[in-house]
Amino acid sequence: MGLLIVGSVALDTVATPFDRIDNALGGSAVYISLAASYFSGPVYMVGVVGEDFDREHIKLLEDHNIDLEGLKMVDGAKTFRWSGKYHYDLNVRDTLLTELNVLATFDPVIPEKYRKSRFVLLGNIDPTLQLKVLEQMENPSFVICDTMNFWIEGKKAELLKVLKKVQVLIINDSEARLLAQEPNLIKAARLIRAMGPEYLIIKKGEHGALLFCDNTVFSAPAYPLENIYDPTGAGDSFAGGFVGYLHKTQDIGIENLKRAVVFGSTMASFCVERFSTKGLENLTYLQVHDRFREFLKLSRVDDDD
Amino acid sequence: MGLLIVGSVALDTVATPFDRIDNALGGSAVYISLAASYFSGPVYMVGVVGEDFDREHIKLLEDHNIDLEGLKMVDGAKTFRWSGKYHYDLNVRDTLLTELNVLATFDPVIPEKYRKSRFVLLGNIDPTLQLKVLEQMENPSFVICDTMNFWIEGKKAELLKVLKKVQVLIINDSEARLLAQEPNLIKAARLIRAMGPEYLIIKKGEHGALLFCDNTVFSAPAYPLENIYDPTGAGDSFAGGFVGYLHKTQDIGIENLKRAVVFGSTMASFCVERFSTKGLENLTYLQVHDRFREFLKLSRVDDDD
Repeated sequence: MGLLIVGSVALDTVATPFDRIDNALGGSAVYISLAASYFSGPVYMVGVVGEDFDREHIKLLEDHNIDLEGLKMVDGAKTFRWSGKYHYDLNVRDTLLTELNVLATFDPVIPEKYRKSRFVLLGNIDPTLQLKVLEQMENPSFVICDTMNFWIEGKKAELLKVLKKVQVLIINDSEARLLAQEPNLIKAARLIRAMGPEYLIIKKGEHGALLFCDNTVFSAPAYPLENIYDPTGAGDSFAGGFVGYLHKTQDIGIENLKRAVVFGSTMASFCVERFSTKGLENLTYLQVHDRFREFLKLSRVDDDD
Repeated sequence: MGLLIVGSVALDTVATPFDRIDNALGGSAVYISLAASYFSGPVYMVGVVGEDFDREHIKLLEDHNIDLEGLKMVDGAKTFRWSGKYHYDLNVRDTLLTELNVLATFDPVIPEKYRKSRFVLLGNIDPTLQLKVLEQMENPSFVICDTMNFWIEGKKAELLKVLKKVQVLIINDSEARLLAQEPNLIKAARLIRAMGPEYLIIKKGEHGALLFCDNTVFSAPAYPLENIYDPTGAGDSFAGGFVGYLHKTQDIGIENLKRAVVFGSTMASFCVERFSTKGLENLTYLQVHDRFREFLKLSRVDDDD
């Protein structure tokens, strides 16, 4: 048992055509942990913050049964800050500012009680740090990894080392094309799985997600949301829902992986309905499960042909 | 009974990174009719060609039980020609040449025996011509319409008149955003259905298709093709499979519309596997049905949660 989540903890300033929020709670570890918290707990979160990190954020995480023994607070330093602006169609965003602050010297130390975790989710951080985390773990059985263009372009050798040690890679479609150097997603998936991960999930934003496993592909739809307020954290919420459901069910068979993808999509759909982490703060498992069922309905066809 | 298809008949010159073909059979009416021919016949095709239109093309269409009484041949004139070039990722294409030729003065005359057709598919041509076709029909019960950016921008008033008379509009995602002046597809769908069509299908290329009906959305996946040789005609093949299946089953209930969307996707997937119309020329209904079942498997999840 045990679910370990590693990633960034951030203070985000986000502007969309609808609204703006300053220094809000953000970061990959936060979105992943909040999304996973609706499935099982405690969630072990490893990250770093500065002394400007609000007590209220700590309380919010603790209220969601997120264990913070692994959250390091650095005195006299500032939390990682990110600022972005979304365009009218919300599929395009500009990064306005990235202040690494405490993240620049982050050296993750995994608390003793976390080291036997069976499920590990390596959020989007420097692959060198992802490797350091894995070195401290005692034989995890299911490791899931996220990454981004920045590391694919800048730290490819380290990323390839990580990929040899993970069971699942979760990336978006443009990242998959970049990593495989191949525009056709189906070919790209084959090339990426040859780099290590047995399973590959390609997120396609408003077009859903693809799960590549064995010789098949599972295509999960996106939820048809009329009002998307803030896409920040959608991919991390997906990862959190995915791993949270697997950890809850302790079943990594293919049919259950498919359901986990749909639970991932479910958590992403809640995330983008409100600003910052607000969409993940006050859900019930009944709400999560109801939307999961809505997702299944979206692509169901009666085959009485 | 009866299925009427109106659209362009063309000689296409297409280059992709893999191959090139000159003056090949093409045009919306041709792709739609060939795809529909696998479901029921005869298909009534209305279009126009010049005297340069090859006898072999006529024979190919007739061999697929496509009735050509409605195909006008203009002496001393040339067939519509289109030439395009696809880029490496196949999602981007440049139109190199458009020679309207006989299409410039096309005035569709619907043969007497076609006028009682219950199903009508208005392929992508000038909405003024689409209206002329509808005026000649005797109370069709199910009219499906395709269009494109060019008409949305240049003939919006005429297009809006067409939309008031059709049951289904089939367009792609960028066209839907343009027509509704709204980037969110779900909102765009609501705005477009308020223009007339009870049902709306939004094609998303490699991301599948959405069917909007009543208060629900059906999300159909795309087939995970490793080798796409020529995307030309994919949207028309989709429309042909969709209307062909509806005409065969004579059932326009929502569950059957969903199946028709999957048959549309099925025909599009065959189309893009080979150059020009080659992918639609030598299929059997068994092959079509087998791929339909593969499509259903793609998005199936066992809900034993």
